[in-house]
Amino acid sequence: MEMTLQQIADLVGGTLDSAAPQTAVTGVSSLDEATAEQVSFLANARYTNKVATSDAAAVLVQRDYTGKGALIRCDDPYRAYRDIMVEFFGFREHPFTGVSDSATVDPTATLAPDVAVGPYATICAGATLGAGCVIYPGVFVGPETTLGAGCVIYPNTTLYDGTIAGDRVTVHAGCSIGHDGFGYATHANDAGEVFHNKIPQAGWVVLEDDVEIGACCTIDRATMGPTTIGRGTKFSNLIAIGHGTKLGKHCLLVAQTGLAGSVHVGDYCVFGGQAGIVGHISIGDGVRVAAQSGVTNTLPPGAEVLGTPAMPRSEARRVMVSMTRVPEMRGEIKRLTKQLAKLTQRLEALEAETE
Amino acid sequence: MEMTLQQIADLVGGTLDSAAPQTAVTGVSSLDEATAEQVSFLANARYTNKVATSDAAAVLVQRDYTGKGALIRCDDPYRAYRDIMVEFFGFREHPFTGVSDSATVDPTATLAPDVAVGPYATICAGATLGAGCVIYPGVFVGPETTLGAGCVIYPNTTLYDGTIAGDRVTVHAGCSIGHDGFGYATHANDAGEVFHNKIPQAGWVVLEDDVEIGACCTIDRATMGPTTIGRGTKFSNLIAIGHGTKLGKHCLLVAQTGLAGSVHVGDYCVFGGQAGIVGHISIGDGVRVAAQSGVTNTLPPGAEVLGTPAMPRSEARRVMVSMTRVPEMRGEIKRLTKQLAKLTQRLEALEAETE
Amino acid sequence: MEMTLQQIADLVGGTLDSAAPQTAVTGVSSLDEATAEQVSFLANARYTNKVATSDAAAVLVQRDYTGKGALIRCDDPYRAYRDIMVEFFGFREHPFTGVSDSATVDPTATLAPDVAVGPYATICAGATLGAGCVIYPGVFVGPETTLGAGCVIYPNTTLYDGTIAGDRVTVHAGCSIGHDGFGYATHANDAGEVFHNKIPQAGWVVLEDDVEIGACCTIDRATMGPTTIGRGTKFSNLIAIGHGTKLGKHCLLVAQTGLAGSVHVGDYCVFGGQAGIVGHISIGDGVRVAAQSGVTNTLPPGAEVLGTPAMPRSEARRVMVSMTRVPEMRGEIKRLTKQLAKLTQRLEALEAETE
Repeated sequence: MEMTLQQIADLVGGTLDSAAPQTAVTGVSSLDEATAEQVSFLANARYTNKVATSDAAAVLVQRDYTGKGALIRCDDPYRAYRDIMVEFFGFREHPFTGVSDSATVDPTATLAPDVAVGPYATICAGATLGAGCVIYPGVFVGPETTLGAGCVIYPNTTLYDGTIAGDRVTVHAGCSIGHDGFGYATHANDAGEVFHNKIPQAGWVVLEDDVEIGACCTIDRATMGPTTIGRGTKFSNLIAIGHGTKLGKHCLLVAQTGLAGSVHVGDYCVFGGQAGIVGHISIGDGVRVAAQSGVTNTLPPGAEVLGTPAMPRSEARRVMVSMTRVPEMRGEIKRLTKQLAKLTQRLEALEAETE
Repeated sequence: MEMTLQQIADLVGGTLDSAAPQTAVTGVSSLDEATAEQVSFLANARYTNKVATSDAAAVLVQRDYTGKGALIRCDDPYRAYRDIMVEFFGFREHPFTGVSDSATVDPTATLAPDVAVGPYATICAGATLGAGCVIYPGVFVGPETTLGAGCVIYPNTTLYDGTIAGDRVTVHAGCSIGHDGFGYATHANDAGEVFHNKIPQAGWVVLEDDVEIGACCTIDRATMGPTTIGRGTKFSNLIAIGHGTKLGKHCLLVAQTGLAGSVHVGDYCVFGGQAGIVGHISIGDGVRVAAQSGVTNTLPPGAEVLGTPAMPRSEARRVMVSMTRVPEMRGEIKRLTKQLAKLTQRLEALEAETE
Repeated sequence: MEMTLQQIADLVGGTLDSAAPQTAVTGVSSLDEATAEQVSFLANARYTNKVATSDAAAVLVQRDYTGKGALIRCDDPYRAYRDIMVEFFGFREHPFTGVSDSATVDPTATLAPDVAVGPYATICAGATLGAGCVIYPGVFVGPETTLGAGCVIYPNTTLYDGTIAGDRVTVHAGCSIGHDGFGYATHANDAGEVFHNKIPQAGWVVLEDDVEIGACCTIDRATMGPTTIGRGTKFSNLIAIGHGTKLGKHCLLVAQTGLAGSVHVGDYCVFGGQAGIVGHISIGDGVRVAAQSGVTNTLPPGAEVLGTPAMPRSEARRVMVSMTRVPEMRGEIKRLTKQLAKLTQRLEALEAETE
């Protein structure tokens, strides 16, 4: 597929500046990697100096961009980048339609007429699949689990009993949604041995509209009521969510993040990779937690934190820099101590002299 | 389902205090979340002040509790909470019985008469399923793998060849138990290229009685002999256990914890979320490792550690607090250095004067 | 199976020293664990003192080893250990042959004549399986996915569309290879709500020859072009690789490590457990990242780093040690401040006196 720069500009509502309208391109890539057959985009001011050296046929920039080059000016270059990607590549077409003869569908399940269910999927009693759902091979849809319209569940993912997904929910391969939360009461059995006795996990998981869950994520069902992932929230991979936790709308969770149980998270929060959040705290709207941080306390809206235990980002950076100076600080303290001792001796000598 | 407060008290061996015996409730919840149709419980002294403000119909407290309110006095409020949860909700009823026509069972496998094997499960040659085992769809039970009585293996979990599970072992969805340990010998091949050459992993995994493994956990088989998870030990999700590691009885491992290979862990240890343990060390009975800690050395029984590298908890807290003071300490050292220099000058002036 | 020490020596190209040639052994184990019916090996100088106390029938040592005991001298004791393990145990024999009637193979897929495809595997349109491939139950081989010769894909692993594996690639159970990378453009929809809008992930994953991937790992497809795991690289379990990242040859990644997207890693790098690497950086050949470290910047070849943020290993150790002294340093600074104040007073008194 090819598009001219003029077609690209029209697609993104942009205007050409010093770029040849009839030049044909075959895609879009980063400033570093774009070839002369591709367009690129400047979405982060940090990379401004790469515009001049990019091989791209043209670069998408904001309307008020002051640099030179073959440009396409538009309102939001990253949005334009995405629109061009959609135009060129679209989204995955699923490899099967209809309900496979090799799937197992309980007669009490309710399937919209146009669903696709791959081989070796199991749809249990009382489950519901909304219009256009795609269930890949090996997926387990537990009893009474309900999916809205347009959900896609990739291979070998397990949706335990009672899970509720809204519309357009995507879950990638190998996830477990709605297994039992980690709840035990510890006390001796009749023989006197102290056991961890399982507490029934009577809750469920809710994935609201437009949630996307990456591969091999685990979301616990709550002890009672829902564990909730709010509308439009997106997970990367290998993320663990504890029982009863409620995530707001439009959050982003990078890979290997873990939230313990009973955490309340607001909307538009971002969690960096491998971040960890203790249980029973609240995290306000728009909070940003840096990668590998350990959050141990409730955070107000808009907080940006870093480190273990997590601190405001600017303080954490100051601490991290100063930490590297501690070895030399120890030396300085020793030197000061010695100098002070000498000075004290000299002063004493002088005092003795002047007595 | 409903129970009166009197029935609740009878169930947990408790006595009513200022609570109406005939009041009916429909469940049990935390002090914060309980409604007037539920009972609640005080299991952690930290929440004592929430008893007064809870909407619960009555609160389960210890027998010697001195506060006021609608109370049910009992020996162990958390145990009582669990008993009530069991009474109200019980445990999951599995959605199928018998051996599915869509499962594959090798003729040399031994299945107790009452097992349930779901569709698309594979039971390999020489495998054994004890009485009452439930094997969900998509589970792989490898050659010579043996499960005791009452085991439940949730969907899409893989038990490699030779795995041994005791009685009442539960493994949640998406786990891999008994894949090869991470063992290679690094040396040049005949062409002179240095390769990591796989070392046969000839061991296996043992899950003792009453072990419960969360979703998407990975437990390596040992190079020789067993990797062992001791009786009653419970795993949350996304936990990695290295080859040859031996965990004792009744440990608790929170999500995303990782133990490297050849670690020996005692009984009743607790590992917080995302904790990491290096290989070839010993961890005594009753050790508690805080979340995100990195344990690099053998720990004596009862140790409570925190931080990376892990230190005794009290020391680690002191270090963590003092770390935040390092930036101001740097300032103080600079100021002291200057003051000392000035003082030295003044002393020298005085010395010169008095000579 | 039994071998005499002479046979062992012959196998590894070694020579007996003070060991009885006809003594029979049944295996090989570590110095601590070997019995009198096993040989052992000294591969790490740190354990030299264990040679004398080992129960092993003989110990494999380097040719110039100067200690005493029943020895087998050879060029590389760890390689010898591996060779003996291979001799005694070999590698896993797979439990099925041919293509199962319970597998689903698209008519347009190309299968070498001797492949083994287990029940409940799905081989999609246009997929290719090279000679001798073994596909375990529940594996999903997506459209146009290509495996070279001798690949083994363990149960319930998902290979998304377009994945390319070379020869002798092994992927353990529960992995997801080639799901969508974590890419969204964030902007308001027509109703004014700010959404994370999915960017098509049009790339794929390449696993080069002799790659081995542990259980429950996740490797993102790139936005465009490949995410690449280089020849001979080995992964432990629960590892996350971001979209567009390129790993070189013969790297080792320990469990729960995460690399974000667009990272370029050289050859022969080693990542300790739970290490985290930010996106868009380069890591030179032979870099070693310690467990739990957080790498935030490009690293030159041969760097050995530790800590969060990662520093050169020696510096990080100095910082870690000195950190534990910060509480006492605070005390010292306070004492110095007081002493200095007193000294200043005394000096002032003296100055007044001598005026």
